[in-house]
Amino acid sequence: MADVRLDFQKQGGLIPAIILDHSSKEVLMLAYLNEEAYQLTRSSGQMWYWSRSRQELWHKGATSGHYQTVRKITADCDLDTLLIEVDQTGAACHTGAKSCFFNQIWQEQA
Amino acid sequence: MADVRLDFQKQGGLIPAIILDHSSKEVLMLAYLNEEAYQLTRSSGQMWYWSRSRQELWHKGATSGHYQTVRKITADCDLDTLLIEVDQTGAACHTGAKSCFFNQIWQEQA
Repeated sequence: MADVRLDFQKQGGLIPAIILDHSSKEVLMLAYLNEEAYQLTRSSGQMWYWSRSRQELWHKGATSGHYQTVRKITADCDLDTLLIEVDQTGAACHTGAKSCFFNQIWQEQA
Repeated sequence: MADVRLDFQKQGGLIPAIILDHSSKEVLMLAYLNEEAYQLTRSSGQMWYWSRSRQELWHKGATSGHYQTVRKITADCDLDTLLIEVDQTGAACHTGAKSCFFNQIWQEQA
């Protein structure tokens, strides 16, 4: 496994992370990490993010109990996006939904 | 299906889109749409993005032939991220890989 150098510069210090449920591979959410959140995620084994709305580090689950335990981390071709598989405790979404992606806009009719 | 109003303001006019292979549900790539790219995607049925590096609209496949035909569009809870299922012609990644996510950083040992 490569010790890659992530590119935190393209979005003002933030990298988006696509979060998948490790078992089902369902897409749960997308959130942003700065370098400190990334280091905390690596050292703790649980997801830490940078909250853009609150402008602070965010240990996912610290208030809700809905922690995310890291199982696998992959970076994309240009090292500015992460794909992370987690074991999700409870719901990923603050609405209580398992996944944040529940607003269906369009689907091709079979 | 809701006619939702997407929030293009949080990232200076851009919304990230997680692109999935419609058949396998594999995550292929992440790229950004501005409102014009979104309208072109909706009207053409193929993926259009905003290229942050070239600062121009980008019809995916126009030079490579690797078009993405839209099958399903879902927005997240706060309407600032898209999850889009596509039929991918050829490779999604400019490296020739099927998916852009091939740099494995860490995996829990069983």
